[in-house]
Amino acid sequence: MPSTTVGQVIRCKAAVAWEAGKPLVIEEVEVAPPQAMEVRLKILFTSLCHTDVYFWEAKGQTPLFPRIFGHEAGGIVESVGEGVTDLEPGDHVLPVFTGECKECRHCKSEESNMCDLLRINTDRGVMLHDGKSRFSINGQPIYHFVGTSTFSEYTVVHVGCVAKINPAAPLDKVCVLSCGISTGLGATLNVAKPGKGSTVAIFGLGAVGLAAAEGARMAGASRIIGVDLNSKRFNEAKKFGVTEFVNPKDHGKPVQEVIAEMTGGGVDRSVECTGNINAMISAYECVHDGWGVAVLVGVPNKDDTFKTHPMNVLNEKTLKGTFFGNYKPRSDLPLVVEKYMNKELQLEKFITHEVPFSEINKAFDYMLRGDSLRCVIRMDA
Amino acid sequence: MPSTTVGQVIRCKAAVAWEAGKPLVIEEVEVAPPQAMEVRLKILFTSLCHTDVYFWEAKGQTPLFPRIFGHEAGGIVESVGEGVTDLEPGDHVLPVFTGECKECRHCKSEESNMCDLLRINTDRGVMLHDGKSRFSINGQPIYHFVGTSTFSEYTVVHVGCVAKINPAAPLDKVCVLSCGISTGLGATLNVAKPGKGSTVAIFGLGAVGLAAAEGARMAGASRIIGVDLNSKRFNEAKKFGVTEFVNPKDHGKPVQEVIAEMTGGGVDRSVECTGNINAMISAYECVHDGWGVAVLVGVPNKDDTFKTHPMNVLNEKTLKGTFFGNYKPRSDLPLVVEKYMNKELQLEKFITHEVPFSEINKAFDYMLRGDSLRCVIRMDA
Ligand SMILES: NC(=O)c1ccc[n+]([C@@H]2O[C@H](COP(=O)([O-])OP(=O)(O)OC[C@H]3O[C@@H](n4cnc5c(N)ncnc54)[C@H](O)[C@@H]3O)[C@@H](O)[C@H]2O)c1
Ligand SMILES: NC(=O)c1ccc[n+]([C@@H]2O[C@H](COP(=O)([O-])OP(=O)(O)OC[C@H]3O[C@@H](n4cnc5c(N)ncnc54)[C@H](O)[C@@H]3O)[C@@H](O)[C@H]2O)c1
Ligand SMILES: [Zn+2]
Ligand SMILES: [Zn+2]
Ligand SMILES: [Zn+2]
Ligand SMILES: [Zn+2]
Repeated sequence: MPSTTVGQVIRCKAAVAWEAGKPLVIEEVEVAPPQAMEVRLKILFTSLCHTDVYFWEAKGQTPLFPRIFGHEAGGIVESVGEGVTDLEPGDHVLPVFTGECKECRHCKSEESNMCDLLRINTDRGVMLHDGKSRFSINGQPIYHFVGTSTFSEYTVVHVGCVAKINPAAPLDKVCVLSCGISTGLGATLNVAKPGKGSTVAIFGLGAVGLAAAEGARMAGASRIIGVDLNSKRFNEAKKFGVTEFVNPKDHGKPVQEVIAEMTGGGVDRSVECTGNINAMISAYECVHDGWGVAVLVGVPNKDDTFKTHPMNVLNEKTLKGTFFGNYKPRSDLPLVVEKYMNKELQLEKFITHEVPFSEINKAFDYMLRGDSLRCVIRMDA
Repeated sequence: MPSTTVGQVIRCKAAVAWEAGKPLVIEEVEVAPPQAMEVRLKILFTSLCHTDVYFWEAKGQTPLFPRIFGHEAGGIVESVGEGVTDLEPGDHVLPVFTGECKECRHCKSEESNMCDLLRINTDRGVMLHDGKSRFSINGQPIYHFVGTSTFSEYTVVHVGCVAKINPAAPLDKVCVLSCGISTGLGATLNVAKPGKGSTVAIFGLGAVGLAAAEGARMAGASRIIGVDLNSKRFNEAKKFGVTEFVNPKDHGKPVQEVIAEMTGGGVDRSVECTGNINAMISAYECVHDGWGVAVLVGVPNKDDTFKTHPMNVLNEKTLKGTFFGNYKPRSDLPLVVEKYMNKELQLEKFITHEVPFSEINKAFDYMLRGDSLRCVIRMDA
């Protein structure tokens, strides 16, 4: 197949969002060849993340339509553009919504993964190289989403946003490592770093929070306290090592006080995975003075303000945040895949649903109803 | 002398604060012998710290008078109470306002120095053992201050609040390590931990901030940006390795923006040593995304609120606070004294004034006028 498509426009199926909040429509699109420093990928599996739904609903953002969503996926390199030396056709890869140029101060810093060149950009619907889209229908450009647009049989991605992984890894499982699961896992393993025997609170028990809990379990935490407003989440969470549950609605006082009482002063670590500003403040205030570390993961609203009494800071509570779990996509993601391969990390329990590409809108329904953690979409079906 | 005073009440001179804001009066006081787990110290040198002045002014706190202030000092153990095995008469020591019991969770944690038993308590004016004062004048008890009360020729202190140091160390110099200088130094060396060649902003160029700058110099920072509302501080600050100055009053925009422009996006580390809430917020927001760490040291007002947009957190800016520079008083302070002994750390430049005990009120004047960094008070004069 590569021999016939390289350098050519590919015609294939893609799920196009024509309007905010309206079901996606499977269309035949034209996918242009990759330009300098770009690669064209054949997507085999993609999964739905909350961020897709959020931008599809387009509440509180500048809407950009028609657009091809999708950013958690696994695929194979079909062809590469000029200057690409790290990848070749046939490589197994995960596209990522944030990149690693390997040359900026962030990429050269051991502490940061917020690449200056390829950091997530949700407003840009075109490629960096020429400010144009690689997707079109009868000449009408269709916008990209966070540089990945994986709800298409073929997509074009900047080489800096592609992690080359072990070809033996099953793409229908490791595709979920492209975003949410790595984010939660890395928030705990790379940033919160709980010690063996420690107590960890996880705020929000969606896929990201459960991946954070999985990280706490892997790190040897002895108590993992799950906090969610939705008690339905508690059953599933038991599979992820969560040992105790707190629903803030069940208590007449702030949840940070409830947790302080449960733990003799506060937890050693907390990880917030809700996007809710009150949960962020509670997650910070519920850590123990002297050594507690709180890590915020949830994406807040534009007009939120984080407020706390400065004595909490002086009492040696640390506040951190993380983007994609502090993983550098190209350098670190292949190693996360290896954690799955050597059975340190389980992914199956995150994948609660599977649908063929033709039924992609069902994945949106599952997520909107709060039924799914991850729904994997099979592109070949 | 020990043979005659052990177990006896000692009559000696002390500077008593009878009322808030009124000059101290040198009185003859009676100092009771140390009880279980207490030691009685002969103070040779003491220095004045802002915290003494703050509680002497008694603005916004419950006033507790008559009281003997003072918490930065150097002295010699005169006698020890029951159960004290670590110290003996003749040992050279620094009393500290916060203690280390060596048995609580904080003392056993490598990360914390906020001892559950002996953490600073500014409201308690009596000894832990029996809830009584060891000072009296004609039977009237005089209150202690933060467990140290070093404005007295003799004082009684809990053994957990006493650091035994190298007897070769000159007490008239190392006395300033009891509080402010160690706080600033440790905030940088133990908490902010700037790398070689890094850029550090210091907010507030009093003794604490200059000690933080000294720490940045010792750590090999290449740019040290001093921020103060009082431009008079800038001249002195040059001696402490500060390379650039910003007076927020000189700019029509927030100082965090000024610093971001000076540094291509923000400093690597910042240390706030003002106690002003706006400086705390600026110190946080002026660090670089991805890797920046801000450390708050200043003691805020009761009704202050720390406010920031949560995107600053998500962008991987870390917020930390520290109490006594994260030093454990008994375990770590002797090693800070050694840094002075082997000339890694200079203390002379912090000591801008010296007065005899009889003129202790002059030390208050120097500090209130902003003239002194540290004024050392000689007890024998
Ligand atoms: N920082 C990053 O790089 C990154 C990457 C991916 C996702 N995210 C963010 O992580 C967050 C979680 O994502 P998800 O896919 O797991 O979402 P989700 O909607 O599946 O789960 C969020 C959970 O939080 C709970 N919740 C909401 N408000 C709460 C409150 N005040 N207290 C307790 N629980 C509360 C909800 O009931 C829900 O179960 C989102 O904000 C998402 O945008 C961040
Ligand atoms: N955390 C601890 O363990 C600990 C220990 C000792 C002292 N402290 C605190 O450290 C702080 C500094 O102590 P110090 O003795 O150096 O005080 P200081 O008064 O000598 O110095 C403070 C400096 O901050 C400057 N300043 C005030 N507001 C400012 C602003 N908004 N922006 C920039 N500069 C500003 C002042 O002009 C002054 O030069 C105090 O708040 C003190 O209570 C904390
Ligand atoms: Zn980069
Ligand atoms: Zn995502
Ligand atoms: Zn202790
Ligand atoms: Zn002090």
